[in-house]
Amino acid sequence: MKQIILTGDRPTGRLHVGHYVGSLKERVKLQNSGKFDEIYIMIADAQALTDNAEHPEKVRQNITQVALDYLACGLDPEKSTIFIQSMVPQLTELTFYYMNLVTVSRVQRNPTVKAEIQQRNFEASIPVGFFCYPISQAADITAFHATAVPVGEDQLPMLEQCKEIVHKFNSVYGETLTEPEIILPSNQACLRLPGIDGKAKMSKSLGNCIYLSDEPEEIKKKIMSMFTDPNHLRVEDPGKVEGNPVFIYLDAFCKPEYFEEFWKDYSCLDEVKAHYQRGGLGDVKVKKFLNNVMQEELRPIRERRKQWEQRLPEVYEILQQGSATARATAEKTLEGVRHAMRIDYFSEGGLQSEL
Amino acid sequence: MKQIILTGDRPTGRLHVGHYVGSLKERVKLQNSGKFDEIYIMIADAQALTDNAEHPEKVRQNITQVALDYLACGLDPEKSTIFIQSMVPQLTELTFYYMNLVTVSRVQRNPTVKAEIQQRNFEASIPVGFFCYPISQAADITAFHATAVPVGEDQLPMLEQCKEIVHKFNSVYGETLTEPEIILPSNQACLRLPGIDGKAKMSKSLGNCIYLSDEPEEIKKKIMSMFTDPNHLRVEDPGKVEGNPVFIYLDAFCKPEYFEEFWKDYSCLDEVKAHYQRGGLGDVKVKKFLNNVMQEELRPIRERRKQWEQRLPEVYEILQQGSATARATAEKTLEGVRHAMRIDYFSEGGLQSEL
Repeated sequence: MKQIILTGDRPTGRLHVGHYVGSLKERVKLQNSGKFDEIYIMIADAQALTDNAEHPEKVRQNITQVALDYLACGLDPEKSTIFIQSMVPQLTELTFYYMNLVTVSRVQRNPTVKAEIQQRNFEASIPVGFFCYPISQAADITAFHATAVPVGEDQLPMLEQCKEIVHKFNSVYGETLTEPEIILPSNQACLRLPGIDGKAKMSKSLGNCIYLSDEPEEIKKKIMSMFTDPNHLRVEDPGKVEGNPVFIYLDAFCKPEYFEEFWKDYSCLDEVKAHYQRGGLGDVKVKKFLNNVMQEELRPIRERRKQWEQRLPEVYEILQQGSATARATAEKTLEGVRHAMRIDYFSEGGLQSEL
Repeated sequence: MKQIILTGDRPTGRLHVGHYVGSLKERVKLQNSGKFDEIYIMIADAQALTDNAEHPEKVRQNITQVALDYLACGLDPEKSTIFIQSMVPQLTELTFYYMNLVTVSRVQRNPTVKAEIQQRNFEASIPVGFFCYPISQAADITAFHATAVPVGEDQLPMLEQCKEIVHKFNSVYGETLTEPEIILPSNQACLRLPGIDGKAKMSKSLGNCIYLSDEPEEIKKKIMSMFTDPNHLRVEDPGKVEGNPVFIYLDAFCKPEYFEEFWKDYSCLDEVKAHYQRGGLGDVKVKKFLNNVMQEELRPIRERRKQWEQRLPEVYEILQQGSATARATAEKTLEGVRHAMRIDYFSEGGLQSEL
């Protein structure tokens, strides 16, 4: 069986280091592993519109931003098909038919949907499109016969719902769709970076993100203002590293060689942590080190991004080509779906054949 | 402004005299009135699948039956575009985007949805597709810029929901969609025929329908077994004509010339009613007359139907051509929708133009 990946992002803002650590870095590694036959990376504009219907301009503008972030991180259009969701109308048709196989109460019980509704303060005024997004996501995944979906742990219920739809479809209409498996991030520490203010989630509206496109000065300013251990008031006080954003970021980004380069006093991160914990190591020193590390990690990404910014027509060409490829694959799947549902009235074996 | 009609039926069974009196007869009249520039008649297979997902075969088989009934009643493919809903995938794409403009609670408040859910004993297990059918219906109507939708009074809330979607879309994305108006049946008495058992609704599952394709013997048998006034026990008793199916059918089908032909004792229906009300007129006599009337009315329909049954390849050609025409119209509307939503990234004025 072909190994196929489907994953993507909603284009509602530039991508930040949380995206990088939580998924992009892993995605590039998977892309370059040689283990996958096909890789589809979706810029989910149609999904973003389900709760941004009144701000299509925001979604539109961020398509280019996300594409630039992808290319900057090393996603390679030669290996990965990068496409725009709304350019593949077959996905809406699959969604439409899958909607018949899921009950309203089943969607209401989906924990991810519940959490997202709460996060967005939707309550009674959830748009139907947003409410149905687990079904739309199942369409995205199955349209490409994806076997592997690399997402965060919080998306597990979405994958479960997708599998249910696959089972239901195959049992009603015959073996047609492929059941996907989730690929969780390999590094547990990397599951989710907190914001620089210590809040659990980085979000544009909270202004607590470091973006992949941030300039060196911005990065430095953000890191030096980071939230640390609020009880670590004087240098000589013992400090906590658990839940301390500065150390979480170091866990995610620090490599052993950076000590030789930037902080000869220590030979590894554990030594730094031990010193911080027993007291006598000030936040500023650790932040300065983190700044050096982050500058080093983000520089090549930012530089590649700037190069791509100079080649925007090429970027659009990549998106247009990728969308055409995705459309062709999805159309083939849809043909199978129509055939299984026997709504291929005018194809071979259609209504005419019953005469 | 062009005058455009969109209407249709779910292919879940052959059409019966209730459909004929309630909509088909009127539809043929509208078709031949010369008042409409375009007429679209949709065989709503995709909608039928929302609550028949596990019985696609039933829906599939009834597509041919409904098409035959249409042609038998006088719908003319030269004047009306008869098409199959699922053959116009643009409708699912419109539905997908309209879903962002309607809240879950708004659909829940739709009286038609409420009633249909109750009728089908769905309760907690409503398929999402069925739940969303007012939105899908708005897509059907707006895809053709329909100005007139001839449906029963019970569908008024659906039209209201459609108008709301049109308003919302036009106010968010700019003037794009056309607001439809409902056309109610001209003859109030014809709004709805009861079943032959006196139940308010004709339904296949209740076995109380007279089908347009029924043979003369079946029609006679059904009419002679019709429910009448249960208190009209002896011929000399006074009988009730209100709510009496035999008289409701006569109201719908009897023409003055039938008295000369079949029942010279009376010169008009009012005389028959008066006699029945004062007593002395037996049910069997009235039923025999009704049978003569119905046979006369249904014969030409049944005969035309038999002719079309001999020309099935032509019928499929009509459906295929009609679907292609409908697809082209819907695609044009969708282009306007995409442009208004600014998700026409690769068209003229798309992403490239912003460089």
